[in-house]
Amino acid sequence: MISLKPNERIDDLQCKGYRIIQNKDMFCFGMDAVLLANFVKQKPENCCIDLGTGTGVIPILMAAKEPEGKTQLSGKLQNAGNVNPRFIGLEIQEACADMAARSVSLNNLTDKVRIDHGDIKEVPCNYKKASFDIVTSNPPYIRGSHGLHNPDEPKNIARHEILVTLEDVVTAAAYLLKPGGSFYMIHKPFRLAEIFDCFMRNKLEPKRMQLIYPYEDKEPNMVILEGVKGGNSMIKIEPPLIVYKEPGVYTDMLLERYGSNV
Amino acid sequence: MISLKPNERIDDLQCKGYRIIQNKDMFCFGMDAVLLANFVKQKPENCCIDLGTGTGVIPILMAAKEPEGKTQLSGKLQNAGNVNPRFIGLEIQEACADMAARSVSLNNLTDKVRIDHGDIKEVPCNYKKASFDIVTSNPPYIRGSHGLHNPDEPKNIARHEILVTLEDVVTAAAYLLKPGGSFYMIHKPFRLAEIFDCFMRNKLEPKRMQLIYPYEDKEPNMVILEGVKGGNSMIKIEPPLIVYKEPGVYTDMLLERYGSNV
Repeated sequence: MISLKPNERIDDLQCKGYRIIQNKDMFCFGMDAVLLANFVKQKPENCCIDLGTGTGVIPILMAAKEPEGKTQLSGKLQNAGNVNPRFIGLEIQEACADMAARSVSLNNLTDKVRIDHGDIKEVPCNYKKASFDIVTSNPPYIRGSHGLHNPDEPKNIARHEILVTLEDVVTAAAYLLKPGGSFYMIHKPFRLAEIFDCFMRNKLEPKRMQLIYPYEDKEPNMVILEGVKGGNSMIKIEPPLIVYKEPGVYTDMLLERYGSNV
Repeated sequence: MISLKPNERIDDLQCKGYRIIQNKDMFCFGMDAVLLANFVKQKPENCCIDLGTGTGVIPILMAAKEPEGKTQLSGKLQNAGNVNPRFIGLEIQEACADMAARSVSLNNLTDKVRIDHGDIKEVPCNYKKASFDIVTSNPPYIRGSHGLHNPDEPKNIARHEILVTLEDVVTAAAYLLKPGGSFYMIHKPFRLAEIFDCFMRNKLEPKRMQLIYPYEDKEPNMVILEGVKGGNSMIKIEPPLIVYKEPGVYTDMLLERYGSNV
């Protein structure tokens, strides 16, 4: 039995019956997390960590994406002394981490998904270098905390670079990844040049990118990038993803690719 | 009277009656040059140079885009001792430069457009530093000359990085631009990370980008970038430009934006 705290509710993830606990006073996940989880190319033997996991939606969706019976580490990896579960979600806000851990329990995923309470900036103290195949992050998009009345409010911490910057997230991802491992991040297109620069300085070569355009005739409002640790210089840019054909009506391409997840 | 050489023909540029001489044995301009010329934001007082101008199509189209009577330098600039014409096209292949110069004459543009025969790598010997507002280039897209039987063939020089590399072009653009001036380049999307890196090392901040998708469900095959000399870190990504709705049939967005030019 999962206990709910004040202002918490259980939402359906529209994917194999998985559910998630959210709190209206905290940051609730959006389409960006769903698009990011769907962009990831994961294999059943991959160890994955999500930096700044919030509600835990990304590791839960990634576990949900796996074919049935393939979500546990193989005997080989377990015998090799690998103690990581398949999916870890790292979250600095304690109430958020607690809520995400209860969502993991709610979905009976405790043997595959673990929520850790901790700081992205302290990743080198808490995890082994080059120990993950996949790192994901849907980090705060907005630079600084200028003009914020309540920089310690949970939603502001999730949206603004108050506790963690782009550079911190990318540096942590580069530390955690094995050579050839992939970092997947969704962010705002207006920061693309800075993101490329940050990836490349950290030896994460941009290898795959998708721009999300709200409408066919509008500028993109999201970009998803895959950077490969030590990869060579050649990037694949995916077909455009256009979300709406008219207000409230998704395009066929969105429904085909993301189906009931959005 | 303009004389044509063997294998040369005169094509209509579909823009205010402007025409261009092309030679089927040399590189003929494509949609990329037209899209690039249309992407440029030019002002009547701007001095512009096109690096690797080929047929001269880009400076001719840029001159053609100007409102009537606005294509000559104002008295103020002339009095300031500015001896550059409004538009220069620099071309290393002598036969190509000669043909481009005849196209300039054909269109009665000799007081506004000048074709220079020379090497992009020798730009610092031949032009004053920081003397242009706009630099454009539709450079060779393909790395190296590996496997080419005839690396000195005009078409191969235009397509492959035989005589000039991406780095050479960007370095020359950075040298030529005034602070705040813009470099506009069209290139292949698979080299985007390398291009961003090259721009940023040369203090050309990527400020505006457009991806050209042949079809709505296909990967982009061209990218146009504007880099601003000494600009700050924020990039505007334009709405997607999708070229065809079905084979041979342009989309409405292409026809609206580029009209009779394509």
